[in-house]
Amino acid sequence: MCELLGMECNVPTDIVFSFAGLRQRGGKTAEHADGWGLAFYEGRAARVFLEPAAAANSPLARFLGENAIKTKLAIGHVRKRTRGEVSVANTHPFVRELWGRHWVFAHNGTIKATRGLSMGRFRPIGSTDSERAYCHLMEALASSFDTYPREPRLLFEAVAEIGRTLGSRGSFNFLLGDGRHLFARCATKLCYIIRRAPFGKARLSDDDVTVDFSAVTTPRDRVAIVSTVPLTVDETWTRGEPGTMWVFDQGSLRGTLPC
Amino acid sequence: MCELLGMECNVPTDIVFSFAGLRQRGGKTAEHADGWGLAFYEGRAARVFLEPAAAANSPLARFLGENAIKTKLAIGHVRKRTRGEVSVANTHPFVRELWGRHWVFAHNGTIKATRGLSMGRFRPIGSTDSERAYCHLMEALASSFDTYPREPRLLFEAVAEIGRTLGSRGSFNFLLGDGRHLFARCATKLCYIIRRAPFGKARLSDDDVTVDFSAVTTPRDRVAIVSTVPLTVDETWTRGEPGTMWVFDQGSLRGTLPC
Repeated sequence: MCELLGMECNVPTDIVFSFAGLRQRGGKTAEHADGWGLAFYEGRAARVFLEPAAAANSPLARFLGENAIKTKLAIGHVRKRTRGEVSVANTHPFVRELWGRHWVFAHNGTIKATRGLSMGRFRPIGSTDSERAYCHLMEALASSFDTYPREPRLLFEAVAEIGRTLGSRGSFNFLLGDGRHLFARCATKLCYIIRRAPFGKARLSDDDVTVDFSAVTTPRDRVAIVSTVPLTVDETWTRGEPGTMWVFDQGSLRGTLPC
Repeated sequence: MCELLGMECNVPTDIVFSFAGLRQRGGKTAEHADGWGLAFYEGRAARVFLEPAAAANSPLARFLGENAIKTKLAIGHVRKRTRGEVSVANTHPFVRELWGRHWVFAHNGTIKATRGLSMGRFRPIGSTDSERAYCHLMEALASSFDTYPREPRLLFEAVAEIGRTLGSRGSFNFLLGDGRHLFARCATKLCYIIRRAPFGKARLSDDDVTVDFSAVTTPRDRVAIVSTVPLTVDETWTRGEPGTMWVFDQGSLRGTLPC
């Protein structure tokens, strides 16, 4: 299994604090040591850092922790392999271009019989069930709309429907970004928190790190964090209901859909 | 304009020495200070480091210079913008997936009237002529073959023909990788060197760095380096003939095609 981390905000924010927690779970405080990745959007484009090795010991992961990149949308993943070798091709998050924007995807769980899924022009590069499920998701979206839907609700419903169908084949917790929204499906385990004024302090569960958000924010800032497990010990995280999908936009929960 | 760097080898090799030269040309010894990128293949998958800022001053570029990633195929680029803002979306190299492999592309030059090019399902994310020319190239390849061609010569000829057509619209020096080959088209300025036994020493043109390749190689190693300008002062680089494309495979020049 794996663990997921997402961040979606109304102002560019760095993910250093949350990623410090996730990093420890990549081989130190948890066993997800078979690779890690972290994607940062700038508008419709994402840049993705990937490594097929343990995040906890990674110089590159440490570099990202020490050189804050600000973004309104980020997706991270630490991998404990169940299917597919340890390689760059099998390291989440995965990225494809559709309608002139990057779509970034990370999965926690296992999906059965993915070789039979229609994937159209989206061909897997690696050998994981996750990437095949993702290719099917992208193909289903590409078949549903000619361009990026003007009415966001139509997109939300399409993603939820595809997620529900794939979810019936196994365990399908996922994060999906399109440069505007963060889609977060809970199949078994997922939680979120929205940090906003008045900001307080928080301490990581997995590392001896505390941050005072009031010192690094303005009163208008809104930051949504989604994670497989609560990353802090002194905040109240909302746990997901299996079979639902959240959509975050501008640091707010824009919708909760059956999925 | 911009500058290109490619490496294609028969054994995984780090690109630290050549990248040290390119980095300096990204804002210090040359004026290409509007972004840089470096892609490393592992099999059919590439991971790409991008930054919309000067390589010469970049902590991330320095990190990559100090933490050698070994690969058989790498493509780098430093950008001096002519069209399109400074942003992640406009930073080379560009990547798309086709036939279950990443295709990595970097361009030096300017192509006219790219808005009229057919791009099919490959939509640009940014606003450069380079990315539009690349999307056209990918669409033309996707239209020419259903899967990755079994006969490499057919692929080489297709890339050369598309390159020639695009090249008639402006200046189209490019590097293209498919995980197996490095395609390098010379429109105005490009050169290469193949390092093989007996290995000697070389000194960078743009930095006070010398390397003794005999200390870091085995007699069977073959490393092809392609660059806009010769990166070393004491080696003999082969200059490209405008209107030709080289194809490198396993550290050897596999073909030279009119293009």
